[in-house]
Amino acid sequence: MDTTPSLIAIDWGTSNFRAFLLDQQGNVLEKKFAKLGILKISRGYFEQHLAQQISDWTQKYPNIPILMSGMIGSRQGWIEVPYLSCPVDLKELAQNLVQANPNKNQWIVPGLRINYPDGKIDVMRGEETQILGALKTSNSSQQVFCLPGTHCKWAWTVDERITEFTTFMTGEIFTLLAKHSILGKLLRSTRTDMQAFDRGMDWSEREEHMLSQIFQVRTQVLGGKLNPHSVHSFLSGLLIGHEIRQVLRTPIVDKKVTLVANARISRLYSRALARNGIDGFMTDSDNVTTQGLFRIATHAGILQRSMIT
Amino acid sequence: MDTTPSLIAIDWGTSNFRAFLLDQQGNVLEKKFAKLGILKISRGYFEQHLAQQISDWTQKYPNIPILMSGMIGSRQGWIEVPYLSCPVDLKELAQNLVQANPNKNQWIVPGLRINYPDGKIDVMRGEETQILGALKTSNSSQQVFCLPGTHCKWAWTVDERITEFTTFMTGEIFTLLAKHSILGKLLRSTRTDMQAFDRGMDWSEREEHMLSQIFQVRTQVLGGKLNPHSVHSFLSGLLIGHEIRQVLRTPIVDKKVTLVANARISRLYSRALARNGIDGFMTDSDNVTTQGLFRIATHAGILQRSMIT
Repeated sequence: MDTTPSLIAIDWGTSNFRAFLLDQQGNVLEKKFAKLGILKISRGYFEQHLAQQISDWTQKYPNIPILMSGMIGSRQGWIEVPYLSCPVDLKELAQNLVQANPNKNQWIVPGLRINYPDGKIDVMRGEETQILGALKTSNSSQQVFCLPGTHCKWAWTVDERITEFTTFMTGEIFTLLAKHSILGKLLRSTRTDMQAFDRGMDWSEREEHMLSQIFQVRTQVLGGKLNPHSVHSFLSGLLIGHEIRQVLRTPIVDKKVTLVANARISRLYSRALARNGIDGFMTDSDNVTTQGLFRIATHAGILQRSMIT
Repeated sequence: MDTTPSLIAIDWGTSNFRAFLLDQQGNVLEKKFAKLGILKISRGYFEQHLAQQISDWTQKYPNIPILMSGMIGSRQGWIEVPYLSCPVDLKELAQNLVQANPNKNQWIVPGLRINYPDGKIDVMRGEETQILGALKTSNSSQQVFCLPGTHCKWAWTVDERITEFTTFMTGEIFTLLAKHSILGKLLRSTRTDMQAFDRGMDWSEREEHMLSQIFQVRTQVLGGKLNPHSVHSFLSGLLIGHEIRQVLRTPIVDKKVTLVANARISRLYSRALARNGIDGFMTDSDNVTTQGLFRIATHAGILQRSMIT
């Protein structure tokens, strides 16, 4: 195995900065994490912050290429990288990297955009890289991905091209309700109560609107039917249930969905999918990010190849 | 006309305190307003705050009865007044007033609760008084009321009894999104743009979930299809549209809804209803509150009758 570094892979989003030093096969040699999302950095200071974060790596490997994905390529980021329109594959992404600094080996992956015929527009930045990292060469030409988070993305690939995707603001609504609403005042703990999660899912399957059902979180507690310690899980089941119910209006090929999220959230989505007869395949989200960036860098020909090989 | 005061009518909610000095016919002689909702007052200090707010009235009319409605009767209020179960009419409310201070002529109107057979529970405090104040003796036995606000209530009356109601958290979700979400960052003004409101209504009529559609607020702006100055109205149309679409799954008798809200919100709901062939009859919310409290006080026999009459 050749452990000479080939790439610094960076996932730079709204809230966090994650950097990975990869070897010649794309394995992670070292990693760094900082709560240094793009919203915390003033325009013009991205390069400086990046240099500080990875100075020990760049001192040892001065010419190592850097590839970044995520909101770093947005209007609020380092440089605005134009969206590519779906369908998009690895090759097209690799051909459209944008140099963050024209004099340096520092690149940003473009985000994706889709314009639906009915006027709906959807966008992503960062998730395209994770999807391509999680993509399996498979017998089935179509694969379905779910990337839960503040803005949960559901994406469909056909023959290794991302063809379509849609965003649900499930995570953001959950956080708003838990932190800032009258329901938040009822929250006693954030422990996971799978029974309460299932009850929330049950509610989501009724013919009522979410705007009305979320008030049930309050009234069920008032009425002594819901333990305040289970509010967190009930609300979670209710919102995830609404999202999944909508997605499953379209049948899922092979009844299989690849989940890209941390273990806690993946378990919830997996449970919600299982209830609908669908197998949620869990992945490690750091791993799919580095795999995606490594694959894109390989196609772009920007990897630093070891002299040994 | 006899302008001797008969009652101090008070609407005391989560955020605001409103008091009205009423004459023998229930007309408003004077009124007071304070941003002194129950959440701003420590337990045990309600009587003191009340005395301060209306001291000039009670000095002039020392024995005048006081009738209060709203969250003042909740667990977080002065004294917890048990909910009455629907169906409920004026007489039953009047018979179940609770004395805030057993030695004084100070009363609180009970809130309403409904337990649906499917386990759904709903509650209201304050709106029952407004509904009874807005209730018209009409040819039609059934009437429909919409009381928009943080927690919008839709209520149905049959023969002057409140038989059923349901809550939508439309107002709270709107405020959370406008104040604390990524969409809020796009907001440039709160001016009303009726065209954008209508576009939001258009979107709400599609077969997509609200959790997905609210992300359109962002992408339509990013895509240059929505003016940031119109985000407020678009989001408003989208959310109100979702609420009304759900309510209209059940036909509205006589295609008439009585709206209890301020003029700005009433106009929006009225427009949304008109689009569905329904006539939204606007009322003055202060007026329906005082009418309701006056009617309840009359039935309860607690009014201070003038010697003149």
